Amino acid sequence: MFYHRKELIQPVRVENPDPRFGQLLLEQFGGATGELTAALQYWVQSFHVEDPAIRDMLQDIAIEEFGHLEMVGKLIEQHTRNLDQTPVYDAPLFRVRGVGPHLVDSQGSAWTANYINEGANVVRDLRADIAAEAGARQTYEALIKVCHDEGSKKALTHLLTREVSHTAMFMQALDRLGKLTDPIFGSVEPDETVDLYFDLSKNGVDHRGPWNQEPKFRYREEPAPQGGLPPEPTNPDEEKLKLHAPKLAAG
Amino acid sequence: MFYHRKELIQPVRVENPDPRFGQLLLEQFGGATGELTAALQYWVQSFHVEDPAIRDMLQDIAIEEFGHLEMVGKLIEQHTRNLDQTPVYDAPLFRVRGVGPHLVDSQGSAWTANYINEGANVVRDLRADIAAEAGARQTYEALIKVCHDEGSKKALTHLLTREVSHTAMFMQALDRLGKLTDPIFGSVEPDETVDLYFDLSKNGVDHRGPWNQEPKFRYREEPAPQGGLPPEPTNPDEEKLKLHAPKLAAG
Amino acid sequence: MFYHRKELIQPVRVENPDPRFGQLLLEQFGGATGELTAALQYWVQSFHVEDPAIRDMLQDIAIEEFGHLEMVGKLIEQHTRNLDQTPVYDAPLFRVRGVGPHLVDSQGSAWTANYINEGANVVRDLRADIAAEAGARQTYEALIKVCHDEGSKKALTHLLTREVSHTAMFMQALDRLGKLTDPIFGSVEPDETVDLYFDLSKNGVDHRGPWNQEPKFRYREEPAPQGGLPPEPTNPDEEKLKLHAPKLAAG
Amino acid sequence: MFYHRKELIQPVRVENPDPRFGQLLLEQFGGATGELTAALQYWVQSFHVEDPAIRDMLQDIAIEEFGHLEMVGKLIEQHTRNLDQTPVYDAPLFRVRGVGPHLVDSQGSAWTANYINEGANVVRDLRADIAAEAGARQTYEALIKVCHDEGSKKALTHLLTREVSHTAMFMQALDRLGKLTDPIFGSVEPDETVDLYFDLSKNGVDHRGPWNQEPKFRYREEPAPQGGLPPEPTNPDEEKLKLHAPKLAAG
Amino acid sequence: MFYHRKELIQPVRVENPDPRFGQLLLEQFGGATGELTAALQYWVQSFHVEDPAIRDMLQDIAIEEFGHLEMVGKLIEQHTRNLDQTPVYDAPLFRVRGVGPHLVDSQGSAWTANYINEGANVVRDLRADIAAEAGARQTYEALIKVCHDEGSKKALTHLLTREVSHTAMFMQALDRLGKLTDPIFGSVEPDETVDLYFDLSKNGVDHRGPWNQEPKFRYREEPAPQGGLPPEPTNPDEEKLKLHAPKLAAG
Amino acid sequence: MFYHRKELIQPVRVENPDPRFGQLLLEQFGGATGELTAALQYWVQSFHVEDPAIRDMLQDIAIEEFGHLEMVGKLIEQHTRNLDQTPVYDAPLFRVRGVGPHLVDSQGSAWTANYINEGANVVRDLRADIAAEAGARQTYEALIKVCHDEGSKKALTHLLTREVSHTAMFMQALDRLGKLTDPIFGSVEPDETVDLYFDLSKNGVDHRGPWNQEPKFRYREEPAPQGGLPPEPTNPDEEKLKLHAPKLAAG
Repeated sequence: MFYHRKELIQPVRVENPDPRFGQLLLEQFGGATGELTAALQYWVQSFHVEDPAIRDMLQDIAIEEFGHLEMVGKLIEQHTRNLDQTPVYDAPLFRVRGVGPHLVDSQGSAWTANYINEGANVVRDLRADIAAEAGARQTYEALIKVCHDEGSKKALTHLLTREVSHTAMFMQALDRLGKLTDPIFGSVEPDETVDLYFDLSKNGVDHRGPWNQEPKFRYREEPAPQGGLPPEPTNPDEEKLKLHAPKLAAG
Repeated sequence: MFYHRKELIQPVRVENPDPRFGQLLLEQFGGATGELTAALQYWVQSFHVEDPAIRDMLQDIAIEEFGHLEMVGKLIEQHTRNLDQTPVYDAPLFRVRGVGPHLVDSQGSAWTANYINEGANVVRDLRADIAAEAGARQTYEALIKVCHDEGSKKALTHLLTREVSHTAMFMQALDRLGKLTDPIFGSVEPDETVDLYFDLSKNGVDHRGPWNQEPKFRYREEPAPQGGLPPEPTNPDEEKLKLHAPKLAAG
Repeated sequence: MFYHRKELIQPVRVENPDPRFGQLLLEQFGGATGELTAALQYWVQSFHVEDPAIRDMLQDIAIEEFGHLEMVGKLIEQHTRNLDQTPVYDAPLFRVRGVGPHLVDSQGSAWTANYINEGANVVRDLRADIAAEAGARQTYEALIKVCHDEGSKKALTHLLTREVSHTAMFMQALDRLGKLTDPIFGSVEPDETVDLYFDLSKNGVDHRGPWNQEPKFRYREEPAPQGGLPPEPTNPDEEKLKLHAPKLAAG
Repeated sequence: MFYHRKELIQPVRVENPDPRFGQLLLEQFGGATGELTAALQYWVQSFHVEDPAIRDMLQDIAIEEFGHLEMVGKLIEQHTRNLDQTPVYDAPLFRVRGVGPHLVDSQGSAWTANYINEGANVVRDLRADIAAEAGARQTYEALIKVCHDEGSKKALTHLLTREVSHTAMFMQALDRLGKLTDPIFGSVEPDETVDLYFDLSKNGVDHRGPWNQEPKFRYREEPAPQGGLPPEPTNPDEEKLKLHAPKLAAG
Repeated sequence: MFYHRKELIQPVRVENPDPRFGQLLLEQFGGATGELTAALQYWVQSFHVEDPAIRDMLQDIAIEEFGHLEMVGKLIEQHTRNLDQTPVYDAPLFRVRGVGPHLVDSQGSAWTANYINEGANVVRDLRADIAAEAGARQTYEALIKVCHDEGSKKALTHLLTREVSHTAMFMQALDRLGKLTDPIFGSVEPDETVDLYFDLSKNGVDHRGPWNQEPKFRYREEPAPQGGLPPEPTNPDEEKLKLHAPKLAAG
Repeated sequence: MFYHRKELIQPVRVENPDPRFGQLLLEQFGGATGELTAALQYWVQSFHVEDPAIRDMLQDIAIEEFGHLEMVGKLIEQHTRNLDQTPVYDAPLFRVRGVGPHLVDSQGSAWTANYINEGANVVRDLRADIAAEAGARQTYEALIKVCHDEGSKKALTHLLTREVSHTAMFMQALDRLGKLTDPIFGSVEPDETVDLYFDLSKNGVDHRGPWNQEPKFRYREEPAPQGGLPPEPTNPDEEKLKLHAPKLAAG
């Protein structure tokens, strides 16, 4: 069951509102890397995670992310409060749809659950969560770099910080499962090709790294197809070469 | 520049075609966790990654994933080759759209680039890649579990194996960057809240774990809002309480 | 700031789990008329609504809807808990993506913020909210009609009931604004055509009603165009009739 | 069966074309609140509405909306006719895709049937229609406010007017069904919680209104969960704590 | 300006309703190859086509397609009229969303304007229209093949026929422009590579055809890159190899 | 199986980078008419095409299009390499998401497989391919017209050229099937209405053309409905006129 208090989890005080910056901020309200993605991803995962402690962590962090979504919304609300004094074509989105946040990204594309990565397995979920946090952090850094308002910067830095915090927590959980540095999980045994590296993109100079070096990996410099020619397709609908009386044909 | 050989990277031999299983396989052709997502994600990342060795790895793996997409497509083609002998409503998707693969998932939703997670930073990208591999692996396991054709199972096990291999490679790359177990990256310094854990979802019993324990984390049992009440919204379009002559009103 | 308690707002006890019914229930988890749509719509509206009492109501109801989303998620989780004993092709979605809720509708389409209707004006928002509740109520009725599990029925009836309650609240709010039965709102004066009714779809028999009767409405039986012929388009890119040397032409 | 006359339903005469305003106008051609949404929503509803008079009304209004869509298209065509004399990056959408209307909104997002709200029940449909009209009217007001061309303003004011007219008609139809001010419809009886109001969003000050006052509503100031703790999830795919030989592990 | 008559353009009489077939029919109501795509594509094109006769043709055919959309809708309405006597999980879409047509395809995905192909040039538009007709015709053939109701078959055969008719008309129009068999159009001169054919997909056996034979085409058996190595990317956001104090690191 | 060489298929050398032009170029990387659409469309078609020579052609061209996608990506990468010296709101997309290409169009909408047109029949596929090429060519022309960088223009002219080349090849293939100028294909016989033309859009002046002239076509000047009135809908969920105790009603 959810509850809400109207006070914010952290302060949001915009001194120099700029609706153009408000539009950029939509990326973290209704965008792929935004707080809604994070909140819903962790929370939906919690429905199928059996481990009570990891489930609890997912719920705690999800609820915090809803509070962060609220902060981003308030930033946008404040950045658009003087919309009438902004040239129309500097902030057309808010002119047409009204002030305050909307569930679209900075390009005006509606939020979609296609951004969410979850399902069936806690290791898969936690890896998805570390990725989600990395995307969110990256966007906050981009926003901070172009921000000219101190109050916004402070709020955004807090939001970036918490993405780091959550990453640390997810890493700890993966580590307890023994899966932070172990690539293998699940119940299907990999086959004997698991340590092969295929050099499929060529340019004469080999840049190598620990991801394709002995003894962990066997490097294949000239990988050849192992699968042979596939059988020909059989298509019952396929057009065969035959003649129709072209009575409607052009020309 | 791309090249192609018609032989497959690994064998694909379906003995007992089942268009219903063919529809499930679409999840890995045109679905969120599928091979197209992987191939395009790694390849698009390679355009902005400066490190030549990591960029090379992303390209090598991307090209391999295109070869895997081809394998999944051939599996679907073979599972639908006897479509005419299947009850119509067992495989309506292929009946309406034709045999062979289409760029939709097992539910018939079109593939979208919203599945892709990339941008600006190699650490963010590699974390997204480990997550992508985890999702792909999970779906392959689900498919293997319900599969009754030995040839398909063998091909799917190879595809699952390679997701593990790629995970190992991405982990090595992150490790070389020092970012496999370190949550922090990028150029913005986190603030002092970085080690706080907020217990926001309650049920009387505390399930704790290494992600919210001293000394790494400071646990906040009753987190209170720190942000105060936000200012009231100012909305130039907002309806104020006023009277209109309701000449068109109903009743 | 958001909080959560793990106890549910109302009981959810499924006695006869059926993953097929679980898939239908997705319509109210990740579908157009579902609880996520309601929760996010009312909550996003609250960012631009100036009237503190209506804003408060929107927030109270939004938070309740998050609690309802949780109930629907728990229903789905319980209906899929015996998935392994269900024929594979009876519940392919959960077989491929795992048990429990996902943010898709009963047809497997991902939730999108395009479902949300809000912006700029409280009258517009409240009308959208009454519409959202009507859709949600209708879907709950459809689900109850085909449901064979008493515990699910009881939970769904509660959820349907609360959609009625919210409708009543939104109607009261609109009524206080004088806009429940008055079609006019906003600051642009309608022109003199406001009471015309155009009979544009014909079949020889006139079915009339209070929406096209005097004195409120003026009925136009044979409406003619009032706008004249529009000017011809001017297209700088348009192909003009000219000849190219057809050196590559077929045939 | 549909017919068309090339004369417009109302005049469209743009004197001062501005492709930037043309892009804003796309919101009503291919946007959520646009004329295509209205036309298709009412028309699709007419397929399942049994009442012949209400069905007729839906068809009459749908056909009018197609005429309005044409007007908006002509406005856009005229606003883009001098595109070549506009700085490239003032109107990039039309530069890349050509002059005249396209089925996208002012942000370039393609129209989607997810905007449409209809199904199964005439009360639900009519409420959705009143909401659709409110959104359309709001967008027209926004466009009129930033419009500097008298001919466009006149056309837009007519279009706004007709949204008001249709609202009046839909209200009359709902009123005849007894459902304009009655929240209840359909055949499922609400349970005993129908008149409860839950104060779930707190800030120390209570803003109350007729939507949460006695005797119509019973106010719950400290709503507690009624549903108890849900059972633990059971997930056959869930990762359990177990050890794998980490032969591929990083580090 | 649009008009409508309630009589259908051609008869629609379903004798053996089957909601499962009704769902397949959605492909032509709200699907990619459906009548809405055709109607809107041709009609939107007409806004920018300067040639008055071709523009007139586009409008005539668009209006006919709206009449066809109505026929498909009526087919679906009639196929779902006995829904209550159908097993629930045979037609879940209509059970949840109500009888009659909805703007989704046979897989439940909402119609989107991304299906539409138009813009800027009449040759491009007409080629897109021939393609649209080919897709529509193909889907009608697929539907006819699995249809067990004579009335439906007759209606579908008419609809298929008219796609052929429209194709013939579009071909005539292209032919008058000299562009039915000439690949070149527009105002940019192709460069000297226009007649090269690159054999990029290899399997040892050459299947050749008139599309890669002298004298029209110059065949390149071993095409080599002509573009050299591209410059290294320059990414201001790229993570460089540096050390952070890993105070939050796992393990 | 896929291979890659790091050298480009043709040179890409941007001398005057402009991130605004980089954003326009996204139309051909992640947009509807872009190279990804072409590459994937032809390649997916190849899975169901039985004719080995046409299948080979589709694969050869698909692989070339992947190489073109790479060229467009390199153009975007180079146009964004000086992003830091560009005003923030001139190129907000790259500021928020990073330099280099992303899989979105010039309006920021994610690429979707809804752009792809394929299935079941080689004639349908080839017609779709000619349409795809026409759209791609048109967008390249639009980009060339507004381009101020000679290196970019040269690369774009090559890409436009190859769309012409592919069109020529597809036309040859259709011609060999006898379907370049013959509208009829497939196995369903059209009915007797195949040569009718319906004048459904009127304006007093008849613009006629070869697409509606004798002897190929029979012109119907005043087309009347042939289908009669459809039966009334039967909707089990429909609201009937009945009274509820309006105890929650407003007012």
